Amino acid sequence: MKETIKIGVIGTGRIGKLHINNLCTSVPGAKVEAIADVIMTDEIRAWAKSLGINKVHTDPEAIMNDPEIDAVFICSSTNTHADLMIRAAEAKKDIFCEKPIDYDIAKINLALDAVKKANVKLQTGFVRRFDHNHKKVRDTVASGILGTPSIIKVTSRDPEPPPFEYAKVSGGLFMDMMIHDFDMVRYLSGSEVVEVSAYGDVLIDDKLKTINDVDTAIVMLKFENKSIGVIDNSRKAGYGYDQRSEVHCAKGCVQVANDYPNTAMISTNEGVFLDKPLWFFLERYNDAFIAEAKEFVAAIKENRDPSVGGIDGLMPVKIAMAAQKSLVEGRSVKLSEI
Amino acid sequence: MKETIKIGVIGTGRIGKLHINNLCTSVPGAKVEAIADVIMTDEIRAWAKSLGINKVHTDPEAIMNDPEIDAVFICSSTNTHADLMIRAAEAKKDIFCEKPIDYDIAKINLALDAVKKANVKLQTGFVRRFDHNHKKVRDTVASGILGTPSIIKVTSRDPEPPPFEYAKVSGGLFMDMMIHDFDMVRYLSGSEVVEVSAYGDVLIDDKLKTINDVDTAIVMLKFENKSIGVIDNSRKAGYGYDQRSEVHCAKGCVQVANDYPNTAMISTNEGVFLDKPLWFFLERYNDAFIAEAKEFVAAIKENRDPSVGGIDGLMPVKIAMAAQKSLVEGRSVKLSEI
Amino acid sequence: MKETIKIGVIGTGRIGKLHINNLCTSVPGAKVEAIADVIMTDEIRAWAKSLGINKVHTDPEAIMNDPEIDAVFICSSTNTHADLMIRAAEAKKDIFCEKPIDYDIAKINLALDAVKKANVKLQTGFVRRFDHNHKKVRDTVASGILGTPSIIKVTSRDPEPPPFEYAKVSGGLFMDMMIHDFDMVRYLSGSEVVEVSAYGDVLIDDKLKTINDVDTAIVMLKFENKSIGVIDNSRKAGYGYDQRSEVHCAKGCVQVANDYPNTAMISTNEGVFLDKPLWFFLERYNDAFIAEAKEFVAAIKENRDPSVGGIDGLMPVKIAMAAQKSLVEGRSVKLSEI
Amino acid sequence: MKETIKIGVIGTGRIGKLHINNLCTSVPGAKVEAIADVIMTDEIRAWAKSLGINKVHTDPEAIMNDPEIDAVFICSSTNTHADLMIRAAEAKKDIFCEKPIDYDIAKINLALDAVKKANVKLQTGFVRRFDHNHKKVRDTVASGILGTPSIIKVTSRDPEPPPFEYAKVSGGLFMDMMIHDFDMVRYLSGSEVVEVSAYGDVLIDDKLKTINDVDTAIVMLKFENKSIGVIDNSRKAGYGYDQRSEVHCAKGCVQVANDYPNTAMISTNEGVFLDKPLWFFLERYNDAFIAEAKEFVAAIKENRDPSVGGIDGLMPVKIAMAAQKSLVEGRSVKLSEI
Repeated sequence: MKETIKIGVIGTGRIGKLHINNLCTSVPGAKVEAIADVIMTDEIRAWAKSLGINKVHTDPEAIMNDPEIDAVFICSSTNTHADLMIRAAEAKKDIFCEKPIDYDIAKINLALDAVKKANVKLQTGFVRRFDHNHKKVRDTVASGILGTPSIIKVTSRDPEPPPFEYAKVSGGLFMDMMIHDFDMVRYLSGSEVVEVSAYGDVLIDDKLKTINDVDTAIVMLKFENKSIGVIDNSRKAGYGYDQRSEVHCAKGCVQVANDYPNTAMISTNEGVFLDKPLWFFLERYNDAFIAEAKEFVAAIKENRDPSVGGIDGLMPVKIAMAAQKSLVEGRSVKLSEI
Repeated sequence: MKETIKIGVIGTGRIGKLHINNLCTSVPGAKVEAIADVIMTDEIRAWAKSLGINKVHTDPEAIMNDPEIDAVFICSSTNTHADLMIRAAEAKKDIFCEKPIDYDIAKINLALDAVKKANVKLQTGFVRRFDHNHKKVRDTVASGILGTPSIIKVTSRDPEPPPFEYAKVSGGLFMDMMIHDFDMVRYLSGSEVVEVSAYGDVLIDDKLKTINDVDTAIVMLKFENKSIGVIDNSRKAGYGYDQRSEVHCAKGCVQVANDYPNTAMISTNEGVFLDKPLWFFLERYNDAFIAEAKEFVAAIKENRDPSVGGIDGLMPVKIAMAAQKSLVEGRSVKLSEI
Repeated sequence: MKETIKIGVIGTGRIGKLHINNLCTSVPGAKVEAIADVIMTDEIRAWAKSLGINKVHTDPEAIMNDPEIDAVFICSSTNTHADLMIRAAEAKKDIFCEKPIDYDIAKINLALDAVKKANVKLQTGFVRRFDHNHKKVRDTVASGILGTPSIIKVTSRDPEPPPFEYAKVSGGLFMDMMIHDFDMVRYLSGSEVVEVSAYGDVLIDDKLKTINDVDTAIVMLKFENKSIGVIDNSRKAGYGYDQRSEVHCAKGCVQVANDYPNTAMISTNEGVFLDKPLWFFLERYNDAFIAEAKEFVAAIKENRDPSVGGIDGLMPVKIAMAAQKSLVEGRSVKLSEI
Repeated sequence: MKETIKIGVIGTGRIGKLHINNLCTSVPGAKVEAIADVIMTDEIRAWAKSLGINKVHTDPEAIMNDPEIDAVFICSSTNTHADLMIRAAEAKKDIFCEKPIDYDIAKINLALDAVKKANVKLQTGFVRRFDHNHKKVRDTVASGILGTPSIIKVTSRDPEPPPFEYAKVSGGLFMDMMIHDFDMVRYLSGSEVVEVSAYGDVLIDDKLKTINDVDTAIVMLKFENKSIGVIDNSRKAGYGYDQRSEVHCAKGCVQVANDYPNTAMISTNEGVFLDKPLWFFLERYNDAFIAEAKEFVAAIKENRDPSVGGIDGLMPVKIAMAAQKSLVEGRSVKLSEI
């Protein structure tokens, strides 16, 4: 077993920096050997240096070709994921790829084939599986103490809508935002989605209508194991990151509430006041990002598949497509139609 | 204004007895003048006497023809509701009618017409509107402090399934159980439902398949005011009566949790333990039943319409029919189709 | 066993009216046969008539001498309790007496002796023992699942201070307010208090200094069973009636929080908002008042001692005296000194 | 302003390792330049190397004499704290010292004098001031929105008792355990303690009686600002680390509950189940340890006094002595007597 896994991180935007920081400070046994981004600022260079990262590239090929490097984190824009996965697989690097792999199922399949052929590890970035709350729901269901699941529920609401410029290239609410929840319901239920039905509308910002996107949506789901489920999404909670999940089973129910910055309760003549839930994914899923990186490093060291693999990169994209189709056609859509 | 409203209660089953007891002990200004049931036991006679009720009939006509009586509570079986409403209207009695008025829209309309023509008061028994929790949700939404509603959510799960004999004549999950939630979403949103989409299955007791009913269901809804919603039902929670509701709005969210018999938290080396939620509607909605009776009496005294009227008896039945149709046809169904 | 216990209520102030109302509407098997108050208004007379109470007296002796009456509720001012108990005992009436029996231990003992000699039932009005929350704490401790108790904690804060005129004749914070908590710690611990130490001050209204009373106090207690405890009181919570209790034991802890009018949580950009706790004893202990009246009636019917008896009327007064002595002398005071 | 504060850590036991790890991974602008411990194992040497620490000593003088080093963390056993502080002050190193400084007030004063004379920074390790919960209580009180404080409450219970060998040299419950709470009440109230009264007993392990220590204790406190307070401690909670605090003020109350590993609520026919609170200080105060190290580094960089200084090292020791005296003498003890 290797002592230290040397990692090259491709993409130094918000999520790339987050992974670099975590790998450097909170993941024993991992070392960020190199980073690459087509746009490399002096600020990033200085920051990398302060973290002891000496190899800073503008071309990801430098990472692919570096024999010192064991594994890559693909954190660049979504349209580059599949190609980079293929290149990394060819270069025999283990792969951590941010979600979604691609918006196109054919491209995803090509990338997954390359991974399979090269026999490298692949982990996809569905970070919420590593969250203390959702994981507890899954572990409770998986333990069997509550019997078979019957109703799967996920609420996911962003604190505020992304900029319109982002929304335009995001792939739409189902592909960009609810995709996390599509993964979550598969994870919580331990079963594949077979059919979906979607309602959605533009209730926050009318501009979204010009790009045929929605900002508020509910999707019902049927699962292979006969359970049924529902996800609700809003691009604007206002009060923080609303991240709740629940599984109702034959013998009971497990549900998780939001996380708060503290447990303070202030009681006055006006009422009782609590702080808002944690604001967004950096606060709420901070520990989960560290845990997912640790899982990736552990899987490599133990020579096993990561717990979130290629199929987990593929299925949520299919579900998102089915949901979009249902929204447009006003009917329930089977996954087999995709 | 009359000092005391004299009431005749028709039907002395579980719900009739509940109303009789509340009217006698907890509703000032009301007096149960007479009761009637086609099956009148000695036990009921003795109980009525202990409450000071001297007129005990087997024919409801005795109540309709009693000039002392101002108003009737119709608590008999559903198939008798519409006819009794028509008779009561003709007899110029104000009417409290348990839900649903009927399973047939034509019969409901006949009954509502009779009420309108006779110009008597009508209140339908959607008791949950008087619950402290759901009412707080509605009041918060109605206050406008959270802006326009966008997502309406209701969870409703019975502690355990009813006997199969009951299920057979119940009208099915949508008409018997979710009908309360159809009323609830109209109440919470302050808007009419225009379209629904239903998923449902038999996950608890296979016998239900023989009568084409389901025991687990999720229904999505679109409202006139553009908000969307979802209801989930299970005939078996196991842990008690799960009654939660939530409205997400432009500026925030209001949600209510279940009620518990106490606030005790027992912490040991094994974990932290709380008591189960209140078990069923008699415990959970006890105060709400009293409040709805008070509302009926107050509406008569103040010569105004009760807050839950005829339209509230009609619409949930229509929504239940649309949900059933959606379940069967696998598509979204508009209320205008019913 | 008697079918109906006929009760005479002496004193028709706030607490007397509360008991009369509960006995008439919520306690099966009880009948208020007569009421008495030295000051009897037309309003009370009319209200009594509406409840079907025909005997309305200004002299409590009319109740004592009425052979129809089985039991009395003594709800008059504290200084009359002991004499009325003695009279009731002589008249062979079972007795419910509001707390405290008296401020003078000799008088309490005289009254208890009379009760004993006459062999009538006696229940003292420590209503909180019948509260769903505190009772759950006691039941948990008594069940033994947590092992022996080690720390007993009670928090009790009134929503707002009483009028100064009331404070002047109240007997002081320990005798008037904390006396409930002295009973509560005995109840929760299942053990007698043997020593106390008190801190207290005037932090709300300086006028109290003129009558040597305090409005904020903490009292530590030692119990016969070696556990230790603490009570904190404030005459002004501002946010409602703060009524919490907790017992820490060898194997864990049981604690109860306040009751709220609903479970609504309103989340906005400003924070999360809940309603205030229930405002005062009429709201918080409403069900407990009914339960204690039922216990009294049940004890008579079953010919057994009520669960809260004479010793429970005596001991809290002794503890209050010891607390006052500790406050004045700046030292720990043993109950045996009183 | 220096870019990087170079730190020498003295003592590599549990708490020393914790600080070393935090300084290396989570405190930007700090560098652990050297470590020292009289007992230096190979394991520690290897671990230090893996963290990039090259200077590993057995004599703390090597740190004092190292001109590269700006500041020291004193994490050795309590009896060495004062002498090491004096040496560090002479060597012009800024000082972070774990609590308590010493059990002897004369020695503490000597050390504080040396710090003052050398004009170096001093921070004492009362880590709970940096906890998200307790800090929120303090910030709320300090904001003034609740008016003047009247009742200060702290509950602090360890999950399980320390080994008897530890207890023997710990200085006793007041000096070893409640000392944190003595600091906490000063912090929360914003006022000095002027008088205390203590109850305590051996309720967990009789062996403690042989060393005149207690394992369960309650201490009442009076503050300079007229508020009163109470602390309860148990060496054995069983269910985890019970760390709650509360301040009641003229216009309301702020209280914090424990932290839990997740928000999961599992409801079954048996009841509702939550996980236990976080187990002990490493879990509960992990972020607070990081925050206190950041505060120390920031204070040096900004050339200001740390928020927890010398007086905060002194006062809790005095209060602990007064509490011990009160326990022994059975009376309220003024701080001025110490």
